[in-house]
Amino acid sequence: MTVKNSMETLDKVAGNGLINRRHLLRLGLGGLGAAAAGQTFAAESGLQFEIPAWSRRPGPGPSQYGQRSPHTEHIGRLAGNPNPLYPGGGSSRTPLHQLQGTITPNSLHFERHHAGVPAIDPAGHALVINGLVRQPLVFSYEDLLAYPMTSRVYFLECSGNSGSLFGDTPVEGTAQSLHGLVSCAEWTGIRLSTLLDEAGVLDNASWINAVGADGASMGRSVPLAKAMDDVLIALYQNGEPLRPEQGYPMRLFVPGWEGNISVKWLTQLKLASGPAQFRDETSKYTDLRPDRMALQFTFPMGCKSLITSPSGQMSLTRQGLYQVTGIAWSGAGAIRRVEVSADGGVSWADALLESGRSAKALTRFRIPWEWRGQDAVLLSRASDDQGNVQPTRASLLSQRGSLGFYHYHGMQSWAVTSGGRVRNVYV
Amino acid sequence: MTVKNSMETLDKVAGNGLINRRHLLRLGLGGLGAAAAGQTFAAESGLQFEIPAWSRRPGPGPSQYGQRSPHTEHIGRLAGNPNPLYPGGGSSRTPLHQLQGTITPNSLHFERHHAGVPAIDPAGHALVINGLVRQPLVFSYEDLLAYPMTSRVYFLECSGNSGSLFGDTPVEGTAQSLHGLVSCAEWTGIRLSTLLDEAGVLDNASWINAVGADGASMGRSVPLAKAMDDVLIALYQNGEPLRPEQGYPMRLFVPGWEGNISVKWLTQLKLASGPAQFRDETSKYTDLRPDRMALQFTFPMGCKSLITSPSGQMSLTRQGLYQVTGIAWSGAGAIRRVEVSADGGVSWADALLESGRSAKALTRFRIPWEWRGQDAVLLSRASDDQGNVQPTRASLLSQRGSLGFYHYHGMQSWAVTSGGRVRNVYV
Repeated sequence: MTVKNSMETLDKVAGNGLINRRHLLRLGLGGLGAAAAGQTFAAESGLQFEIPAWSRRPGPGPSQYGQRSPHTEHIGRLAGNPNPLYPGGGSSRTPLHQLQGTITPNSLHFERHHAGVPAIDPAGHALVINGLVRQPLVFSYEDLLAYPMTSRVYFLECSGNSGSLFGDTPVEGTAQSLHGLVSCAEWTGIRLSTLLDEAGVLDNASWINAVGADGASMGRSVPLAKAMDDVLIALYQNGEPLRPEQGYPMRLFVPGWEGNISVKWLTQLKLASGPAQFRDETSKYTDLRPDRMALQFTFPMGCKSLITSPSGQMSLTRQGLYQVTGIAWSGAGAIRRVEVSADGGVSWADALLESGRSAKALTRFRIPWEWRGQDAVLLSRASDDQGNVQPTRASLLSQRGSLGFYHYHGMQSWAVTSGGRVRNVYV
Repeated sequence: MTVKNSMETLDKVAGNGLINRRHLLRLGLGGLGAAAAGQTFAAESGLQFEIPAWSRRPGPGPSQYGQRSPHTEHIGRLAGNPNPLYPGGGSSRTPLHQLQGTITPNSLHFERHHAGVPAIDPAGHALVINGLVRQPLVFSYEDLLAYPMTSRVYFLECSGNSGSLFGDTPVEGTAQSLHGLVSCAEWTGIRLSTLLDEAGVLDNASWINAVGADGASMGRSVPLAKAMDDVLIALYQNGEPLRPEQGYPMRLFVPGWEGNISVKWLTQLKLASGPAQFRDETSKYTDLRPDRMALQFTFPMGCKSLITSPSGQMSLTRQGLYQVTGIAWSGAGAIRRVEVSADGGVSWADALLESGRSAKALTRFRIPWEWRGQDAVLLSRASDDQGNVQPTRASLLSQRGSLGFYHYHGMQSWAVTSGGRVRNVYV
């Protein structure tokens, strides 16, 4: 095998091996492709060049609904319910370290349920708008399908995502187990403002109290200004009707805000002069401060990023060039910059952002990195177009203290040991 | 039930009921939501307001890999192989009339196979780059995963999509059965130029002959200039590894060009001084002209649009406002305008385009339309940012004749009869 080595010509842009992101566009990796000359390459490369069985005969024809390859079935959500006394509780986490791009397939979108997934027949489901309105209204699923809709790519992140990083000790884990409560999809639905205009909101209304049809009657309160801005009654996800675990037949979708306010299996929107103080906005999803007062209604998710590869519990198995890649997002706007450090935050270089990035959606970033066996700590730092910059963990904790659990958006540090093992660390 | 009627205030923008597309943003539909007052709305609306069974107890918890609701399982690809002597042949068509937005879920992406779906084990698969290169190379799947990748949303359309419209008589059918060989996904892969730079393309090379590992050894030739521009070795689709029916573990992806040139199960790229004249670029996928000469290598798919609702074999079941919606795309660039006519092309109005539309991707359009039981013919006409305008069927046939079958991108006309039935017509 001929291995080319063009490392000397690389444009170093920060410490410990980071390479100019523009090399993403045209850099050969210096010989990962085995040289193949004449009839000898099969033996040299160790690859099998017999005509394989699957090329010798026709396979099965087209199908009504496609399935994955058995060779990719190890890619799944990490699903669990830590409390057996709480039936239908728990969550499942998106395998961020095994995905690429920014769209999460519906089967792999994270879940968080408070009483499991109700098996709703849309013919027996209704959405009621009542309270401080001129005319209370009730909509069947069929009614809603006739309304004007809009489509947009948005991330969704659970308030509790990355919560273990408030702890004193870095937990062993993967990008999935530590940060997998974030996903991204193209959501299609009716603007809530369209239905509110039809019901006629009274002047003394300033909040909307939303309730789901699950066994927990999951409820959250949404300020009217946000509801009139970009909130949807979502009916489709990535083109197809919502999945049951995402709220079929309909959910509230509140772009950029903590996930549980996007109430699934939505059945009531009650206009009110204040928040309902539902269980899940009082006993949970509040931020406990050092003075033991709880901060309520932390709505937009922070400006955040995460390196998904290399990431926790991966091993680097060879020396040479690696593609550092990850995702960034902000509940306030669009990602405009992601910087990466390979030396624990001493020096930084700009990563390449994919084109087409939009507000309140995942953005993919990439930068090449040369690893020659040295110790390294990889970090990423996102900035959005509203002036927000992702804080270090230390900076976030100095503001918030460490009693909280929700709304962690500090940096994630991955240490690479000289043996190539990657693990979660604090720097 | 109180039915409001605000039709008189609508801003008419073209003949036969088309309404200003800006109404999409705030128009109430005049009373689809049943009025709900006090305790009486249940009886008035006919909806059941007993607390349903699914709200009374917890459902199942989170899962490793999500599934659809049984109430949406009727949404499927229309799969068939018209020739039983041709095992593994045939196609399946995306249910465009049942989807929203622009992303096609992987399980519903159209298929077209020439020898069915090979069951490839990536450990036994390789990609060879040879022919007119300085250094022939062979890549395993694992090798490729280490290369720099890029992600982008692109449509894919089969050359034969909409082919029945070359016929003398309009075929009864749906948006799916007539036009379902187009889909759209976020594709992630390695730029082909990256691998070609590594192999070193010789000066006398001007084409790349690509071959798949399926039983048909599907082959197509790609001009080198396109290969160096935006062609990918695609490894992921909508975030997850390719599905077997889309080329797992790897396919060529040639943005904007006829679908079958994006060779699935890619195993060889041979640099050459001319096209290979493969079977599927000579006996098929050529355009037979009126003089019976065949035009070869019609690569970019035309500027095109299609109304997906209302569409063929649907029935309008009530009078009032409808949301006319559909998709538009161009192999040459980005969609910048879609016009809609409700009177068979006499008058036209601009539809609303979703934001975030990008080159060589599906764009969703919408416009409200008032139907009071009258006869109507709905048409859409797309324009792209390269100056291309979708032709009428008559105009396309006057240039091309009617002996061809491939690359139809003329307009689709849907007639609405006074009874509300929608069907395919020629105008």
